Amino acid sequence: MSVGKLEECRQQIRAQLDAVVEFWLKYSHDTVHGGFFTCIGREGNVYDELKYVWLQGRQVWMYCRLYRSMDRFRRPDILAAAKAGGEFLRKFARVSTNGNQWKCAFCLTRDGKAVKVQRTIFSECFYIMAMDELSRVTGDKEMEMMEQLIYWVREDASGLGRPQLPGDVPTNSMAVPMMLLCLVQQLSDGRPETGGKYSELGSWCVSEIQQHVQRDGTAILENVSATGAELPGCLGRLQNPGHALEAGWFLLRYAADNDNKEIQRTAIEKFVELPFESGWDKAHGGLFYFLDVDGHCPTQLEWSMKLWWPHSEALVAFLMAYSQTKNPELLENFFRVYEYTFSHFPDSESGEWFGYLTQEGKVALDFKGGPFKGFFHVPRCLYMCESLLDDLLGKHG
Amino acid sequence: MSVGKLEECRQQIRAQLDAVVEFWLKYSHDTVHGGFFTCIGREGNVYDELKYVWLQGRQVWMYCRLYRSMDRFRRPDILAAAKAGGEFLRKFARVSTNGNQWKCAFCLTRDGKAVKVQRTIFSECFYIMAMDELSRVTGDKEMEMMEQLIYWVREDASGLGRPQLPGDVPTNSMAVPMMLLCLVQQLSDGRPETGGKYSELGSWCVSEIQQHVQRDGTAILENVSATGAELPGCLGRLQNPGHALEAGWFLLRYAADNDNKEIQRTAIEKFVELPFESGWDKAHGGLFYFLDVDGHCPTQLEWSMKLWWPHSEALVAFLMAYSQTKNPELLENFFRVYEYTFSHFPDSESGEWFGYLTQEGKVALDFKGGPFKGFFHVPRCLYMCESLLDDLLGKHG
Repeated sequence: MSVGKLEECRQQIRAQLDAVVEFWLKYSHDTVHGGFFTCIGREGNVYDELKYVWLQGRQVWMYCRLYRSMDRFRRPDILAAAKAGGEFLRKFARVSTNGNQWKCAFCLTRDGKAVKVQRTIFSECFYIMAMDELSRVTGDKEMEMMEQLIYWVREDASGLGRPQLPGDVPTNSMAVPMMLLCLVQQLSDGRPETGGKYSELGSWCVSEIQQHVQRDGTAILENVSATGAELPGCLGRLQNPGHALEAGWFLLRYAADNDNKEIQRTAIEKFVELPFESGWDKAHGGLFYFLDVDGHCPTQLEWSMKLWWPHSEALVAFLMAYSQTKNPELLENFFRVYEYTFSHFPDSESGEWFGYLTQEGKVALDFKGGPFKGFFHVPRCLYMCESLLDDLLGKHG
Repeated sequence: MSVGKLEECRQQIRAQLDAVVEFWLKYSHDTVHGGFFTCIGREGNVYDELKYVWLQGRQVWMYCRLYRSMDRFRRPDILAAAKAGGEFLRKFARVSTNGNQWKCAFCLTRDGKAVKVQRTIFSECFYIMAMDELSRVTGDKEMEMMEQLIYWVREDASGLGRPQLPGDVPTNSMAVPMMLLCLVQQLSDGRPETGGKYSELGSWCVSEIQQHVQRDGTAILENVSATGAELPGCLGRLQNPGHALEAGWFLLRYAADNDNKEIQRTAIEKFVELPFESGWDKAHGGLFYFLDVDGHCPTQLEWSMKLWWPHSEALVAFLMAYSQTKNPELLENFFRVYEYTFSHFPDSESGEWFGYLTQEGKVALDFKGGPFKGFFHVPRCLYMCESLLDDLLGKHG
């Protein structure tokens, strides 16, 4: 282990985290209506006032997590911002759609009127994640939505509003068990009783995620059938390397919590090493956004672009895998991702990170926040990497 | 007018049209279940068997139009393929969603089972377009769906299945009146009685399209309010130059049919010249896919890519505008688009056109057909340009 290099990383990561937190504290707060602007231009300007609920929830969660777990962020302004965001969500995010059904909106006007509702579970997931983390700093508790979510995923999805169609076969899309596992870990953290209550759900999520190991263990596929078989066509062949790497560290965390070496091995070999090997662009560096396992051209127009979040997930995945195993190859790959990430994504002029590069690494979209980029992947990655490096370098205690 | 250059264009366009028709006749027909494969790889391979209804309808329409209007395509194999496609649509495209409501699916499995239904009107539009053109070669008639469509657009959209949300203000999205105007022109062509029936609808569409002229006549915006005012945020500032150019030639055709010089002038100045001026990439050539009228970075990841269809629409728009006015500047711009298009999109190795280039003009996705690229924009452009050039060069009669 190269202590000097790790210490250098730790310092850069720590400085970046400070700067990114300041960026969002400075530019994203709506002091009139509450909640956060998430469409933030390169220099901090708000270019759209819509409030995306995923990103509202994620920002509340991230502020609270930083407040709760890092001394230098235990600041009243951060707590106040998190509370105001939570209040905005509580007041406006939930909408009634089909009579007596409640859903969370996907986006809201600046003053909280629902603009769009998606027929998926993710707005609700980020709402729960936010409210749980907030409750850990405020002491409130409000979790009725989790049961609704479990019902949609495991019993009956018709409440999501999609018509049942004969050609739309039940699919295990990796995002769903990943998201639920994330919530199980969130809700159970430090609460043995809740952990017990959701332990069966957690292992179900892990087994659903593992169904995505396909082709005799040589590939992670993003969508499989409800029974874990490969699906036909583009949907079945789709790979999302960054998402697989994210699943990798979710599984690593699960393996550590449950002292399960078998899951740890699967996480590293299948969900970290494989997607990195197939997803890394040998010509230009960086992780592709989408690939087709048979080498066809993906139909997603952005398939070859380099997005910030797959790189954030890869950093966490490799550093966590190294922490757990001390296998030097994992650290080498961490450094490889680190070099690419820190030389391409941070904006040295105006702060924060660019989110979207061309395949060749040129900035393609220069905003710092948009409908899908908020205060989440960057600070979560920096916070987690800083904590992992602190442990590795013996900075705690 | 440079006759030699126009004659050269005409020959290239004619040869391209022949080759493109042969490509789809050879690779896209499903002789087992009927209908057309639309996910066709670079060399003609089917890489996904899903059947996208927009593209099924468009292919039926295009085959029939070629059969009906160009002598060399009045071939039994083309007619048979169109009929088989129509039969597949008639059997499988319509699905029942909310009890007694009928919608057209967005995509179907190879054997016709519905996979997805969109909450928009476009599948139905292409269904109607296909069936009308087919009826003109077969003599059948079946148009009840048009009345449903008009009801959704002008009376009550709730049948489309979107929940009514307080922040989702009624919007005039340019695609809707464009699509309806296209259908009015389709259904009325050569049928004075139908033309009379839909004449008020046609002029309503024209007036709705003209509402998109904004900023004191200096810009076409893709979405405006129901009363023709600018909308806030990214949605309101969005520009889609290729779509504006397409609207341009829809209006030019309407102006010619109705001998209306005022609409002709608006079409050329506002819907052809303006979007070309603002949408053309001065650095690399080609038309941007999306722009923000205030110069913010669009949030669409593909905003700077060069897509085949805006260039197809621009060719038709400039050539039609030139035909109607004989203004040499319009012809110059036709040649400018022509040079870029024919040097970048056609695949000289495997035939047909690439659909998606990077901003710099490199092929980014190499398939010939996909969920949104079928047998439509390329052959429609080639067929229309060939006809316009025939007229200009006195090849008819």
